[in-house]
Order: sequence, then structure tokens, then C-alpha cells
Amino acid sequence: MTEPAAEADQLVDVVGVGNAMVDVIAQATDAFVAGQGLTKGSMTLIDTDRAHELYDLMGPGIEASGGSAANTVAGVASFGGTAAYIGKVSEDALGEVYAHDMRASGVRFDVARATTGPATGRCLILVTPDAQRTMNTYLGVSSLLEPDDVEASTVESGRLLFCEGYLWDIDLAKRAIVKAMDLARAAGRRSALTLSDTFCVDRHHAEFRDLVSNRVDILFANENELAALYGTDDLEAGIAAVGADVALACVTLGPRGSLVVANGDVIEIAPIEPMQVVDTTGAGDQYAAGVLFGLARGFDLAECGRLGSLAAAEVISHIGPRPMTSLRTLAGLDR
Amino acid sequence: MTEPAAEADQLVDVVGVGNAMVDVIAQATDAFVAGQGLTKGSMTLIDTDRAHELYDLMGPGIEASGGSAANTVAGVASFGGTAAYIGKVSEDALGEVYAHDMRASGVRFDVARATTGPATGRCLILVTPDAQRTMNTYLGVSSLLEPDDVEASTVESGRLLFCEGYLWDIDLAKRAIVKAMDLARAAGRRSALTLSDTFCVDRHHAEFRDLVSNRVDILFANENELAALYGTDDLEAGIAAVGADVALACVTLGPRGSLVVANGDVIEIAPIEPMQVVDTTGAGDQYAAGVLFGLARGFDLAECGRLGSLAAAEVISHIGPRPMTSLRTLAGLDR
Repeated sequence: MTEPAAEADQLVDVVGVGNAMVDVIAQATDAFVAGQGLTKGSMTLIDTDRAHELYDLMGPGIEASGGSAANTVAGVASFGGTAAYIGKVSEDALGEVYAHDMRASGVRFDVARATTGPATGRCLILVTPDAQRTMNTYLGVSSLLEPDDVEASTVESGRLLFCEGYLWDIDLAKRAIVKAMDLARAAGRRSALTLSDTFCVDRHHAEFRDLVSNRVDILFANENELAALYGTDDLEAGIAAVGADVALACVTLGPRGSLVVANGDVIEIAPIEPMQVVDTTGAGDQYAAGVLFGLARGFDLAECGRLGSLAAAEVISHIGPRPMTSLRTLAGLDR
Repeated sequence: MTEPAAEADQLVDVVGVGNAMVDVIAQATDAFVAGQGLTKGSMTLIDTDRAHELYDLMGPGIEASGGSAANTVAGVASFGGTAAYIGKVSEDALGEVYAHDMRASGVRFDVARATTGPATGRCLILVTPDAQRTMNTYLGVSSLLEPDDVEASTVESGRLLFCEGYLWDIDLAKRAIVKAMDLARAAGRRSALTLSDTFCVDRHHAEFRDLVSNRVDILFANENELAALYGTDDLEAGIAAVGADVALACVTLGPRGSLVVANGDVIEIAPIEPMQVVDTTGAGDQYAAGVLFGLARGFDLAECGRLGSLAAAEVISHIGPRPMTSLRTLAGLDR
């Protein structure tokens, strides 16, 4: 696989904006997830008290830096791409770990760490024996991301902007996304959004429809999120609707691969079989990493999709939401 | 596999004493390890400044509760055994994580967390492509473990006492081990020791010889540690020497399995092939968990060794020093 010639500018490939948080990943039974009143596979926002309560009940954990858009930009860097990240952590032990992991992944991360206010956000993730993940998010200081944290120079420094739908749960962060997308458009950059979660789409349905129609160039969604956005369980109808709404849509179908929708065409992307399926946390984030890296580097859409499948297969084969093997090497880009 | 009938007492199977610390595990190249002046596979003690320096240079990490003896008692609990742990963490974020993980593993952990003094200890672990781990230990508050932390009632509450050789690097902790072993003997309990590291044996050679001869009933060592202890590269000579020194010795041979030496007999224990070899951190600790659980529950020595091989195979198949699958289920003890 040869990479297209890079453009002769100083831009990074992707600028991500999202809720910065450390994942605490523990194995759990289906009975535990159900007993806690959780919907398997979804994300629930929790407060400090509930975070303590649930943590006390959970099994032993592994901690890893996470956050949807942050996982994606770390994936872009693993492909050998360049990236920057906008998100908020605190000046505490987990915030230090988080900043280290971003920079050690090769991602520029300049947002000042908060010295007052809530602690660094945490996502308590329960992984059931089917490798499905159920997330419980204590946003902490990540919820204080605000328009002022979005610097024009950072957005303009990227070929592509990538925002996560989870940000829409907080009013300040919502305004930060809109600001970032407006800055991107003014600078001639494309804006990408991931819908993140079916419940998130349901909570903000009308606003997401408006955002997607008016500000988003590239949309990532799984089939359930697509169904929620367009109010139809019919995949073909959803594809037609999203195709009319955005220039490029990537619809993930879990183990069945994905569909890339552009210019009236639907390209079927085959899944890549992972060595094993251990923990699906980060699958969508890494799929987006492959596609965005491919787009930023000028690969054709089928190859962008293949890179997405490859990155998703790598991340679900182990615990943790970010690649543990060089995606660049896996993709054969060094050959 | 049927388990022998449990003894009708209220004892826990194993009481572990060790340096409590959180592992920060990152992948690294051989060139990075060599460039940092480290000996691959060994443990180096580092101070705060060096910990910061090395952390800044390391790749992105995964955090997991570790500490040799703590990993072992967590393994005992994963076999369905009962255990308690004596080790020191601070009242900080990592100390909270540590205490949670011990209790969530089913291990009793009552030692008061320090509210002043150094932070919770950290072990910066570099995992090279051959799955070998090179450890850099910032002891932090774990180094303040002292004889007063070893309560007679805790030692007496266990069928077996298990101490890690790493403790011998600190004078206070050394006295804590001696106190624990003396309490164990007075209560009619057996004391086990793991030699931990070749350099650790070299640093305290004469004292280890004395400790092993006079206070240790069960010794765990790999072949290099055995060679260092008895000053011979000849495995047979080492086996003969250790057989004369302790009632039971378990000598691990890496991928070649292990030898259980007792009453003039040497039992060869076959290795168990792991699904994959990802990170050898914790292999020795989990081997000890299998053997100690087996001994506490009255299995014969060959079966104790098999449980050790099984636990080691599980832990090297993934990142992190503690089991991620129920060892009880893997061992077929529920059938």
C-alpha cells in the first residue's frame, strides 16, 4: 500500500474535540449490568455519588485514557497521522496521566488543565462476557469545556475537524462544537461528527438533525444511531436520508462491516476479522480514526473504509479504547 | 477436578505482604530499554525525579494495580481462595484505586492508608515486543511499610504467609518480613518467600541465604534467582542446595515449566501453552498463586504445580499483572 503524496502544508490531519476522561474498565456479568438498571451497550451520565457507589460495587479495574474523540485522534496518530485535541482535564493525578498519554501518543494537547473545580472525568466501563461495553460517565471537569477553549488557531491547524456527539449533553460544550464547526467552515475545513450513542441522539433529536444538515460534512453513526436520527428502522431509508443530508456518511454495522455513503453511491466495506473479541470499547472511535486518516491523506473512499475496519478490529482484540499495535504497520503503510 | 474438603477453621488461605504499587504499563522497543540504561527483565528502583523523567519519555500507558505479593493474593482469590494483604498506599487517587481493586478482587486489605508522606508507589513497566517486562519502581509510600503494620492477628488469620523478596530493599520492610515470619512460625503457619529478582538476590545475598535457611518453609525462585542465591549456574546443584534448605521449593523455568522440590523428590511440572504471549508481567506472581492456593486447599504437589502453570499462562496472555478470567473456572474447579 503506498500512501498518496502529502500536501505541502503544515496542517495536522485531524483536530478532535471531546469529553476528556479516563476509562476504568472492569469485567461484569450480564446480571450485574441488568441489576444496576443499565442498558447494555449504552452510555449513562452519572454524578459523583453514583460514581462512588458504582465503583464500590464494580470488580477490579484497569485504567486507560479514553474519551471518544481523543481515542480517535490517538488512532490517527497510530496510523502515522498528525493530530491535535481539545478537551478538559484537571491538574490532578488522572489529569496528569491523561495529558501524558495524549502527548505520548503523538497528539498535540495544549488545553490548560483546570486548577479548581471538579476532578478529571471518569468513565466506569463494564465489559460483559460478550465483549459489549456499558459506559457510566462521570463528566467531572470535562463538562466545563467551553467556547473559549476552542482556539481558532487550533481548528484552523487541522485538515479535518472531528467532534463527538456526547458533547451535546452539556450546553457550554454544545456551543463549543458549534463554534469549532463555524471556524472550520470559515477556514475551508471539513467538519466531522460522530453521533456517539442512540440515547444521546434521542435526547437531542431536533438539534442533531439541524446540526447534521447545516454544519456537518462527514457523519459517523452506527445503524441504531442512524435509525434514531431519521426516525426509521429501515436501513435503506436511513441511508437515503443521510446521503441527502451530508457529503459523506459512514454507517457502521458491527461485525457486518460498514457502508460509506457519498455522492449517491453506497460503498460496502467488509469487516476485518479480529484475532479475538475481548472488549468492544473504542471500536467506533477507531473506525473513525481509520476513515479520517485516509481522508486527510487522500486515499479513496474504499481504502478509507478498509483502514477503519482494520483499526476497529485491532482495538476490540484487547482491553482498552486505543490501539496497542501500530496501526500504520498493521495497515502495511510502511512497506 | 474435585477440591479436597476444606478444613473446618475460619482461616484465609494466604496472607500476602509486599510493596503495594500501581503499575503503569507501556509498550517499548528494545532500543528504548537499552537507551535508558536498563537491563531487560529486571527491576530497578527509581526516585521521584527519575520517575518523572522516565514517564515523560515512555509511550502511552495502561494503569493496573500491581505489586508482586498483592498480585499473588489476587490470584488466590481468583481461584476461589481467600486472602488478606499487608502493604501500604496513600490516601490519594491511586491509593483509592489500589484499595478498590484489592477489595473488589475479594482480598481483605485493612492497612490504614497514609495521609501524609510520599504518594502511592508506581512501577513504570516497559513491555518489549518479546513480551518481556522491564520494571522501574518508584516505591513512594510503600517503602514506609514497617513492623507495626504487620498485625499478629492478620498473620495468624492465614494458613500460609507469603512475602516478596523486593521488601528486602528497605530496612523497615525487612524487619516487617522477619516479624511476620516469626509470628507465622509461632502460630504454626508456614512461611513462603519469592526471591523476586536476580539483582535483588545479589544485593542482599548473605541475608537471603540466612532468611531462606532459617525462616522460609516454601521458596519460589526462577532459575536465575536460584543460581544467584546458591552461587552456581548448574541447575542440578542449585536444586540440591535448595532441597536441603527448605521443605518445599518451586523453581520456574519460563516456557519450560517448573520444578517442585520436596522431600528429596523433584517433580517436573509441564508448562501450559498460553493463547498468546502479550505481557509476562505477573507470570511468577500468578504461578505462586496457583501453588499456594493448591497447598492451602490440600491438593497434591503435582496438582499445585499445574494450578501454578495455568495461572501463569492466563496472565501472560494479556496486559496487566492479575488474572482477567476466573482461574477457578479455568482450572475446572467448579465442575
